[in-house]
Amino acid sequence: MNKIALAIHGGAGTIHKSEMTAALEKEYQNGLQNALQMGWRILQQNGSALNAVEAAVVELENFPLFNAGKGSVFTHEGKNELDASIMNGKNLKAGAVAFVQNVKNPIKLARLVMEKTEHVLLAGEGANEFAHECRVEFESDEYFFTEHRYRQLLKAIEAGRIQLDHAAENENQKPKTKSQKPMGTVGAVACDAAGNVAAATSTGGMTNKKFGRIGDTPLVGAGIYADNQTCAVSCTGHGEFFMRGVSAYDVAARMKYKNLSLEQAASETITQLAEIGGEGGLIAVDSTGNIVLPFNSEGMYRGFVAENGEIVVEIYR
Amino acid sequence: MNKIALAIHGGAGTIHKSEMTAALEKEYQNGLQNALQMGWRILQQNGSALNAVEAAVVELENFPLFNAGKGSVFTHEGKNELDASIMNGKNLKAGAVAFVQNVKNPIKLARLVMEKTEHVLLAGEGANEFAHECRVEFESDEYFFTEHRYRQLLKAIEAGRIQLDHAAENENQKPKTKSQKPMGTVGAVACDAAGNVAAATSTGGMTNKKFGRIGDTPLVGAGIYADNQTCAVSCTGHGEFFMRGVSAYDVAARMKYKNLSLEQAASETITQLAEIGGEGGLIAVDSTGNIVLPFNSEGMYRGFVAENGEIVVEIYR
Repeated sequence: MNKIALAIHGGAGTIHKSEMTAALEKEYQNGLQNALQMGWRILQQNGSALNAVEAAVVELENFPLFNAGKGSVFTHEGKNELDASIMNGKNLKAGAVAFVQNVKNPIKLARLVMEKTEHVLLAGEGANEFAHECRVEFESDEYFFTEHRYRQLLKAIEAGRIQLDHAAENENQKPKTKSQKPMGTVGAVACDAAGNVAAATSTGGMTNKKFGRIGDTPLVGAGIYADNQTCAVSCTGHGEFFMRGVSAYDVAARMKYKNLSLEQAASETITQLAEIGGEGGLIAVDSTGNIVLPFNSEGMYRGFVAENGEIVVEIYR
Repeated sequence: MNKIALAIHGGAGTIHKSEMTAALEKEYQNGLQNALQMGWRILQQNGSALNAVEAAVVELENFPLFNAGKGSVFTHEGKNELDASIMNGKNLKAGAVAFVQNVKNPIKLARLVMEKTEHVLLAGEGANEFAHECRVEFESDEYFFTEHRYRQLLKAIEAGRIQLDHAAENENQKPKTKSQKPMGTVGAVACDAAGNVAAATSTGGMTNKKFGRIGDTPLVGAGIYADNQTCAVSCTGHGEFFMRGVSAYDVAARMKYKNLSLEQAASETITQLAEIGGEGGLIAVDSTGNIVLPFNSEGMYRGFVAENGEIVVEIYR
């Protein structure tokens, strides 16, 4: 039997310990722990990696402090537009949705795209129509509304900029050169007892987003990838750089074509990301149950379950 | 000075010589030749690979027989929704748009996304808004309307299926197992005298498309990729498989990490595409001016300019 493994993230970005209260930190830790517990229980009961990553991401979507599902940031128009993707390393099948509205758990909808359609990515009104046909759970605008996200939007509009999640909010006191970056995402990767790997990623996008921008989250190869031959990857960070770097697949390609270990491959991918100016991180597992969680940002909300079953959650570098 | 190189495609799919008239064949050849001439002139005058691929794709978009720009297929609702992408191998910058409407040349809009925004991919209404802000050329629905595409839609609706371009239309006479696939795309890849490579891809999508499906065309790594270190690639075929295979970047990754030649890398990528059930082809150039145009479908509208300046266009295997 294969070693089971699970890792999750709640986004990378500028997370300063000095701006964090003990109570808030505890809340983040609880959010991560709950998600790990949900996914781990499935793996322990011989469930599939696919079910485990979906369950973990559902928890992260329902947790209001992360930028996905409830707690998503607001677009320029004050709407929540959600993206999500899931990929099964057993058969390279994938499903994703981009800017769906009022769908409680976009990751479940992504899985339905994978399983019920011949497509990989559905976007916008069409994706919402598909959600209605599938009778997924919808929620009112009020459900998605969180005070801190709305304040972020008002500040961003005032400052005339597109704001990115997990970037420090007191931007005015900082040198102008440090521009805000869109970093808020949640994700999970898992390896099950059968040696199958899977990945899931979900996001509420960018505060004050305009023009129907799609980031890396719903894109196979950029924000997500899974292949039993190599690994499962979920990315978080400044999406455009993960798209240009094709970062999720790049980890797998370095393993497959350069015969690197998961650790070496992921580390090289993050180095290359930095070379093109990208900031963020990723979580990855290979099909023997190894886990890595590299990032080049100030912090990354992250966690994994150790071999002895111990839950480890971390925020800072 | 580097060897200049240019290749284009007008889509891959089921193209049977028996269903083609001499006059229609001539028309396709003219369309390909004109596009090659436009791009080649730029490269000969020391223009950039980026300008050459854009100019070639503009010609292919304006040509009514290919599924891009004028001549695009109709969605289920009878609309034309266009996708395009462009990537510069010099700096790994990329721009793309998904389902824009009434934009005469989506490839020009993709370039504006690359050059005027911090984003890589804009989709839907937002992308159209951006197009208006940029004052790109718009055309009426009548401009995009072509009789043969509309007939395709009516047939597809009647048959209750999503139809794919360049798939033979007399499907009823064929075994049911041969399902229709979305294969209509145009693209160009070039290498300029400075050794810079670039790629451009554009499509009108799938006939009778529903649910806001996004294919591989606007996705960096799937339908397009360019990096001076390795190669520039534009794909055409059943998009979902190119997405799952991350096929455009896969060619580059095999060159970069396995030290394969362009020809070996592209051939392996097409082999792997076939292994997961994908059909189609790609065109690619490396930064020393080598060209490959592999495909595993019945045919692919394609052409390139030989070293001596001779224009070569081909349709069948």
